[in-house]
Amino acid sequence: MNPAPDGLPGRGGTGDRAPRLAARPLALDTIRENVVVLSRDCTALRPVRLLGLRRVEVRAGDRSLLASPMICDDPWLVGPDDIGLPQPLFHRLGVVTGDPVSIAPAHPPESLDHVRSKISGATLNQDQFNSIARDLAGHRWSDMEVAAFLMACASFMTPEETLSLTRAMVSVGGRLSWSHSPVVDKHCIGGIPGNRTSLIVVPIVAAHGLTMPKTSSRAITSPAGTADTMEVLAKVDLDEAQMRNVVETCGACVIWGGRVNLSPADDVLISVERPLSIDTADQMVASILSKKIAAGSTHLVLDVPVGPSAKVRDLQAAHNLRRLFEYVASRIGLSLKVMITDGSQPIGRGVGPALEARDVLAVLESRADAPRDLLEKAVRLAGQVIEADAAMGIGQGEVRARQLLADGSARRKLDQIIEAQGPSPVDSRLGRRVHEVPAPKSGRVEAFDCRRIAAIARMAGAPDDPGAGLDLLFKVGDTVRAGEPLYRIHGSEPTDVRYAVGASEDDCGLTVTA
Amino acid sequence: MNPAPDGLPGRGGTGDRAPRLAARPLALDTIRENVVVLSRDCTALRPVRLLGLRRVEVRAGDRSLLASPMICDDPWLVGPDDIGLPQPLFHRLGVVTGDPVSIAPAHPPESLDHVRSKISGATLNQDQFNSIARDLAGHRWSDMEVAAFLMACASFMTPEETLSLTRAMVSVGGRLSWSHSPVVDKHCIGGIPGNRTSLIVVPIVAAHGLTMPKTSSRAITSPAGTADTMEVLAKVDLDEAQMRNVVETCGACVIWGGRVNLSPADDVLISVERPLSIDTADQMVASILSKKIAAGSTHLVLDVPVGPSAKVRDLQAAHNLRRLFEYVASRIGLSLKVMITDGSQPIGRGVGPALEARDVLAVLESRADAPRDLLEKAVRLAGQVIEADAAMGIGQGEVRARQLLADGSARRKLDQIIEAQGPSPVDSRLGRRVHEVPAPKSGRVEAFDCRRIAAIARMAGAPDDPGAGLDLLFKVGDTVRAGEPLYRIHGSEPTDVRYAVGASEDDCGLTVTA
Repeated sequence: MNPAPDGLPGRGGTGDRAPRLAARPLALDTIRENVVVLSRDCTALRPVRLLGLRRVEVRAGDRSLLASPMICDDPWLVGPDDIGLPQPLFHRLGVVTGDPVSIAPAHPPESLDHVRSKISGATLNQDQFNSIARDLAGHRWSDMEVAAFLMACASFMTPEETLSLTRAMVSVGGRLSWSHSPVVDKHCIGGIPGNRTSLIVVPIVAAHGLTMPKTSSRAITSPAGTADTMEVLAKVDLDEAQMRNVVETCGACVIWGGRVNLSPADDVLISVERPLSIDTADQMVASILSKKIAAGSTHLVLDVPVGPSAKVRDLQAAHNLRRLFEYVASRIGLSLKVMITDGSQPIGRGVGPALEARDVLAVLESRADAPRDLLEKAVRLAGQVIEADAAMGIGQGEVRARQLLADGSARRKLDQIIEAQGPSPVDSRLGRRVHEVPAPKSGRVEAFDCRRIAAIARMAGAPDDPGAGLDLLFKVGDTVRAGEPLYRIHGSEPTDVRYAVGASEDDCGLTVTA
Repeated sequence: MNPAPDGLPGRGGTGDRAPRLAARPLALDTIRENVVVLSRDCTALRPVRLLGLRRVEVRAGDRSLLASPMICDDPWLVGPDDIGLPQPLFHRLGVVTGDPVSIAPAHPPESLDHVRSKISGATLNQDQFNSIARDLAGHRWSDMEVAAFLMACASFMTPEETLSLTRAMVSVGGRLSWSHSPVVDKHCIGGIPGNRTSLIVVPIVAAHGLTMPKTSSRAITSPAGTADTMEVLAKVDLDEAQMRNVVETCGACVIWGGRVNLSPADDVLISVERPLSIDTADQMVASILSKKIAAGSTHLVLDVPVGPSAKVRDLQAAHNLRRLFEYVASRIGLSLKVMITDGSQPIGRGVGPALEARDVLAVLESRADAPRDLLEKAVRLAGQVIEADAAMGIGQGEVRARQLLADGSARRKLDQIIEAQGPSPVDSRLGRRVHEVPAPKSGRVEAFDCRRIAAIARMAGAPDDPGAGLDLLFKVGDTVRAGEPLYRIHGSEPTDVRYAVGASEDDCGLTVTA
């Protein structure tokens, strides 16, 4: 090494003794990417230097993270020798107040080079996707960088790339294993209001004796996710140990997947896909299948609703999607059955957690007012899942499912699961404020706009307000008289209900033709 | 309107009386997109609802903005009835502390639909780009959304789309007008260390008598922008009125463009392009030409350096870029000359603000040690700019430029401009700490890696530390002896210098062949 003329030690001397700041927790939750707050007079790094690069590497002990900086001009909040750490980051770094933390301008993660290659038209290999998934799971990318990756993938991906991405996402997360086999699952790609079949399929299948550890999502852009509806009946916020207890006792569960951390890379992708409304087939396949493999599933029945306002618009698109799912599933060792179903209108009558739970119980209790479409669809899906049992012949699953529903076994199984998961923590009484949306004219219900129905139910307060939502009174093909209520809007907050009513006046989401 | 059964007024009643929060300034600078801070117990909007959508519409008086929310758990910082507004947003909303501010979940700007069209392969028209530019300039997109737009454009853009984007960016900003014509400019697409020709071209051209109101940028990822180097000599942080005064007095200026706000939509795009290292021809053309039109330029000479480590790697790429520049320029009424120049190595000797200013003054003072390459290149460029004067014949510009340099007119003009802009606010003495980087062996200097040279100069502290940078002692073709210094690293902060020295040991940025 050439000795520095000014007597500075070279690298390898004190070069790694970067200036230290004191960790200071901030009662802020950035919801999204890692953020650190630095004083404008920060002693370790002049914030002006961050304006262009906008990412810093943060080190505490042996943990290192990348974060986006914010600048603070209030020394009471963050002093020149402090680094302000919002809650999620404070936790991820594993520090206590005052712990030394060093920062430096971040070198962009190497995995971003692969994103640039992808932008310029390259096809990425397994190693490159592995490095991407590692950095996603390690929170080393900014939201902008995640968005860039998603956009690069949205322009084109080969089936082999979708497979590599799926494998990469599996490789960076945990993986559950179960003592029984087969381990079955059922998943819907979403987009259809109501359609709460899982809460019926799981108890039927478990009553038959198969293992079905179902993790589900909360609604992000829809009025209810399976987890939101189940939460009306039971606690869903379980960790892995609690989930295992429930599955050991009941053979099945229906919990929220958020605490089980099955696919941390996918969680980061989803957190950016959602606000951007990016919803490509490739990301969907990788996301769903990586989570199923991580959950230890061996068999999956996938519900793909097709309709003009569903996620999948026509049969051609559905078949293309099916082929991609089958390609990836077969190579990662998952037995998959894709069911292409009618997605032209909502399934069941309720839209929103409490209203959907009402429909589910009506079906499980074989009540006369149980929505027929929900019942029939759940029986078909449960039948397919049950046929993962090698003892069942083709076509026998549906017969068995109908029987387990009719004799009350499925209802009792759901009660057992509810008991094992614990009581619901939410007040899920139906919203007290009710508004009836009138038919604009007499005639025949011609079509539903599923997106519009979902949007109005959300405006009414679903899913945060579990008792909010829509109660649909007609199906396609029914005749209505002008002024007769098409559906009821339920809600509890005046602003929410007003907002939903206004939206229903602009466009109620049903087409009635004279 | 159907009366609400629960007696709620419908929309148009009190529907627009959304819950109000009290504006509370926060001494935070988010650097980037608009952010608001809401209490987890916020009375106006349950933050949990924001998790998925992550954008809120913020209204105060007749101003409305979109912002990304952060959640606060400290009532001393932001209470349930407050909305915390970081400085940039507080300013953009034009509120004072305690002013009522309303918030609601944001409807995504319609312009985002165009982004989704672009992703799925559509070509956008002028109206669509206008709506995109309006929302960019109005800070209505999140950084993620900007990233998505840039990526969609990076996959392909037609020349017509680049033209439409350019026009759209012009239409949403201010536009300067000048009493004299022609109004000339000179621009380099960047990427070559040193290369500070503007500070020589501007005084030559102004000494000739043409109007040249030059706005320039500060370095973002390079060791010095023209504004950083000019700041060694004069104040550059001028607003539009101050700029006009200087140009009326001197016929020219060299200021930082940041306070003139010429292309606000482009400023937002650049703030995301930079950290993502997205650098496409289309964005470059739209960005440069929209700013020139906004600045009131009629004639532009564009320097496109070509070299293996320059932005443009080969002549084919340079010609394609030139054609795109010419296509757009001709249709927006800008007279353009593209000069394809040698970008195989740095121009001049200094890299970093103070070292580059030293080279500039050496050329303007016709000193014997003035870097020859910088002088010749500046004279060529100035000659082309001068030929915008209809009185000058082809080839006469360069002769005139050389004469104005030799007789001291250009030097006196620069002094006049410096006097009019005001004294430099920075301490630009050369960094006291100097490290000589030795040649690894005897031989011939074969090539420079411009990116590496720039990176090492930045590590040494440039441009925040104006006296930091590199002083290059050789050019391609020169012979060196092993151990002889290839260049000097200047800096003032030990950590910075150590970092730069370490990097030069890994790869010094010059290839020497025996």
